[in-house]
Amino acid sequence: MLLRMSTLFLRTLRDDPADAEVPSHRLLVRAGYIRRAAPGGFTWLPLGYRVFRNVERVIREEMDAMGAQEVHFPALLPREPYEATNRWTEYGPNLFRLQDRRGADFLLGPTHEEMFTLLVKDLYSSYKDLPLSLYQIQTKYRDEARPRAGLFRGREFTMKDSYSFDVDDAGLDKSYAAHRDAYIRVFDRLGLEYVIVSAMSGAMGGSRSEEFLHPTDIGEDTFVRSAGGYAANVEAVATVVPEAVPFDGLPEAHVEDTPDTPTIETLVAVANELFPDAGYTAAHTLKNVVVTLVHPDGTREPLVIGVPGDREVDAKRLEAQVAPAEVEPFADFEKHPALVKGYIGPQVLGSGSESGIRYLVDPRVVPGSRWVTGANAPGKHVFDLVAGRDFSWDGTVEAAEVLPGDPAPDGSGPLELARGVELGHIFQLGRKYAEALGLEVLDENGKLVTVTMGSYGIGVSRAVAAIAESTHDELGLVWPREVAPADVHVVATGKDAAVFEAAESLSRELVGAGLTVLYDDRPKVSPGVKFKDAELLGMPTIVTVGRGLAQGVVEVRDRVSGERTEVPVADAAAAVLAAVRQGPATSSTS
Amino acid sequence: MLLRMSTLFLRTLRDDPADAEVPSHRLLVRAGYIRRAAPGGFTWLPLGYRVFRNVERVIREEMDAMGAQEVHFPALLPREPYEATNRWTEYGPNLFRLQDRRGADFLLGPTHEEMFTLLVKDLYSSYKDLPLSLYQIQTKYRDEARPRAGLFRGREFTMKDSYSFDVDDAGLDKSYAAHRDAYIRVFDRLGLEYVIVSAMSGAMGGSRSEEFLHPTDIGEDTFVRSAGGYAANVEAVATVVPEAVPFDGLPEAHVEDTPDTPTIETLVAVANELFPDAGYTAAHTLKNVVVTLVHPDGTREPLVIGVPGDREVDAKRLEAQVAPAEVEPFADFEKHPALVKGYIGPQVLGSGSESGIRYLVDPRVVPGSRWVTGANAPGKHVFDLVAGRDFSWDGTVEAAEVLPGDPAPDGSGPLELARGVELGHIFQLGRKYAEALGLEVLDENGKLVTVTMGSYGIGVSRAVAAIAESTHDELGLVWPREVAPADVHVVATGKDAAVFEAAESLSRELVGAGLTVLYDDRPKVSPGVKFKDAELLGMPTIVTVGRGLAQGVVEVRDRVSGERTEVPVADAAAAVLAAVRQGPATSSTS
Repeated sequence: MLLRMSTLFLRTLRDDPADAEVPSHRLLVRAGYIRRAAPGGFTWLPLGYRVFRNVERVIREEMDAMGAQEVHFPALLPREPYEATNRWTEYGPNLFRLQDRRGADFLLGPTHEEMFTLLVKDLYSSYKDLPLSLYQIQTKYRDEARPRAGLFRGREFTMKDSYSFDVDDAGLDKSYAAHRDAYIRVFDRLGLEYVIVSAMSGAMGGSRSEEFLHPTDIGEDTFVRSAGGYAANVEAVATVVPEAVPFDGLPEAHVEDTPDTPTIETLVAVANELFPDAGYTAAHTLKNVVVTLVHPDGTREPLVIGVPGDREVDAKRLEAQVAPAEVEPFADFEKHPALVKGYIGPQVLGSGSESGIRYLVDPRVVPGSRWVTGANAPGKHVFDLVAGRDFSWDGTVEAAEVLPGDPAPDGSGPLELARGVELGHIFQLGRKYAEALGLEVLDENGKLVTVTMGSYGIGVSRAVAAIAESTHDELGLVWPREVAPADVHVVATGKDAAVFEAAESLSRELVGAGLTVLYDDRPKVSPGVKFKDAELLGMPTIVTVGRGLAQGVVEVRDRVSGERTEVPVADAAAAVLAAVRQGPATSSTS
Repeated sequence: MLLRMSTLFLRTLRDDPADAEVPSHRLLVRAGYIRRAAPGGFTWLPLGYRVFRNVERVIREEMDAMGAQEVHFPALLPREPYEATNRWTEYGPNLFRLQDRRGADFLLGPTHEEMFTLLVKDLYSSYKDLPLSLYQIQTKYRDEARPRAGLFRGREFTMKDSYSFDVDDAGLDKSYAAHRDAYIRVFDRLGLEYVIVSAMSGAMGGSRSEEFLHPTDIGEDTFVRSAGGYAANVEAVATVVPEAVPFDGLPEAHVEDTPDTPTIETLVAVANELFPDAGYTAAHTLKNVVVTLVHPDGTREPLVIGVPGDREVDAKRLEAQVAPAEVEPFADFEKHPALVKGYIGPQVLGSGSESGIRYLVDPRVVPGSRWVTGANAPGKHVFDLVAGRDFSWDGTVEAAEVLPGDPAPDGSGPLELARGVELGHIFQLGRKYAEALGLEVLDENGKLVTVTMGSYGIGVSRAVAAIAESTHDELGLVWPREVAPADVHVVATGKDAAVFEAAESLSRELVGAGLTVLYDDRPKVSPGVKFKDAELLGMPTIVTVGRGLAQGVVEVRDRVSGERTEVPVADAAAAVLAAVRQGPATSSTS
């Protein structure tokens, strides 16, 4: 295919778009690949859509290769199936809901678990029909509170979502592993660096779950890894729990005056003044943080989280634990006189207590652990308050932040923290959806069993952004060969008719050999502008036909390495074909 | 690609789905190509989605070949641009509207004129940038009152929509002609019979407009054609207007008692009793039909249409004329005492009249034409009422039905009527959208001119249904090679291991040669069921490997002609490849 710059629907921009927060967004807009059409909605322009379709092709090929079968559902879906699984409500404000002309409720699909479950129920009835993996590549909708970072977090985006159906857990493990392998091949082919991390399954239900995270400073997700190979989404990190301590011989709790201790730091200072030999640190204090849980049905519940004073409550970890409920700041101290702001202590907390407020503690709060914490009176703290002896709680919660150096739960060493974006997510749903929607098959003994399912997603539009983000340089975009909108960019410079004839002829020869060629045939554009455009647009190979033609040579440039070679014009096509066939030109590691 | 029936997500059904009205819907569901997911929304199953993608590929190839460039917009669109062109309101209940979490208004795009116009305005500013044709293949939404006929009229469906941008009318004519030619190539390749008919541009505004109609008895559209080559959508047929008659010498109007004349037939009988020599027919009477117009802003207006008594008012023709207003039956006789039900006459009608009700007449009501019509009193009619002398009107309207034998407006002979479904629609929008949204470019003289646009659509999912509808036979689906989900269906029958080995080996050989093979490798299914499935599924070539194998032969069958050939097993692959390469196997004419 020959794409001529003279007629291509393209306008490269000198200035960054005002709303672009990240390089990929800035460059994709400036290079004329995408354009904002709505809040959180983008239009793919011709070059951008070519990249998009290349990414889609890679995903489709790998899904087909693993034996998954492609189907395609509507995006506009009836309420009933989502009501049956409670997701109509649980999705809260993230779900786009609407009514048709008769007042029937519909939604725009955020994912399609329900629909796939019902489809398989509709057609299949025996263990002999399984295993089965189905997928679609489809537009998804989520009413994000804060669409951001261009294609990374939109309200309308494209996902490959697939679902596996098995008769037993061993089958699910195999289907899960097959998807995991296919995802590895997809991201390898796309030239995208990734880390596979353990993840929470969150609002989706289910058991085993991993994310493919692309490490990048602009990522919204925090993950941890150890030198010994442990890697997890921060939401999924399990605290290493200390051993419980026998109560025998522990000192009695005692209340002390601790005036002017509004913060943990000031409290620790006062504690060390009072007891100079004790060596108090923030880790010895127990901070009780009040939040409001908003349940899917709209009811609001105050909740207190007890965490060691050297850690904040991590909003994402807490949210993952309490989902589908959402967390809001607590502001109702007047309604709850038992809570003395700044001096809340565990003795008044818990379902059975004076306040009646649920109290969840960090797993480090084991029986026998001693704490400095609020004494439920202004200016007073209690010391040597022993967990399990002096106070109780309703349960533990993984809500405290993970700090660099924390031990990995599998003993593989201290954790380091990094940021990433989610490229893909695989998880074992188990029987949650099949049970809610009645997907059963007859097993070998003629007995009805509930099918077990997996759910697997790749963000297609997000992958395009991640590739742009990870491969760009200071000059512009740098596409890996597998997804580049064209294999080669031929630039004709100057005004010499012979140059344009030679460039045209070379372009046609390359097209004839099966390549897609972007040919800058614009007659009145300066060489400087053409070179800048070529760098910005990011084809992996750039051929310049210009002044050298008088000496019979053209320049072949590798966009990644910057390496330039002068090649006799007669050998130019062969040189380009060799470059294209030598494999991926990409600056990313894999 | 090798598709094995043993693992293919497919269940053929013996019974017709209860809601299927037309053969394509019935067969596509029974053969496991599509499945209903929501009212007016279908899921594509694996075989169906392969056909869908083949149709999409043909359309994409032809759009690319004509120089149109592919982009992709969101489907969830902001209200503002549609407000600027008034379509937010004009679309009425057909538009899916919704709000985001902040209460901002959105719609699900029914077509994208506004968005394309704004995109081009955003990037282009000079006549040098034009001409330009952009297209997308995208999901569209219309809240149809009566989704029907499976894929023919859904609420969510896929369209290829393109838009052309030109600096002047001559340019628009060229872009229009290029799309027209591309559409001819698309439908020829798809093996779909079509008639290109003149059409009304309707609610879209604009001037020249044609539809590609596929003639079929199940079509919702009526069109006309003459032996001399005229063809038009029934909405677009212009009445051949008789010459006006001088008033001189015309008789005076006279009111007669016409008791018991509730219908045109009884009125004609009484008229001929009263005036035996006059030879009255229904065509001499003027029937005044009252309707209610519902304007987009919700206001309701009574309207009277005067048509010759031998014709009914054609609801579609009337609706096309009054759009975006909608037409409802009139029921408000009590509020309008001037209207005497069954005896309404023109003398009390018109904006300036006693009733104040707008009065539009058929173009055959020319000055000097004489009519028998209501006398605005029960049991009385007026005779020799002369148009323009005895009554006036507010305008003419093309609302009377077209009857077989009516003259073609271009003088090419009498019209015949037929039914069809719209496969494609091309029209010259002109400057309506560019004006509303301010799309101007500088012309050669540095003067700002408004761009002129065309809009062109093909229903992708509908094309799949039309192909199924036109090619099926009493045994099942019959796919043309260009769109068939597989090139060949290999059926292994019996229990003989050698048969399955030979079939497997043949299938692999064909896949190796680049074909897509559907291989019925199911071990325990009877030959009868396999043959029935192969006929229902409709691959163009069916190869049976069975009892003949003992004699070293397999059977190659052409699904269209039914022709069966015995071929030595060693030559089977070559025979299939020859069949595939000999071109389209299709029962449709083109």
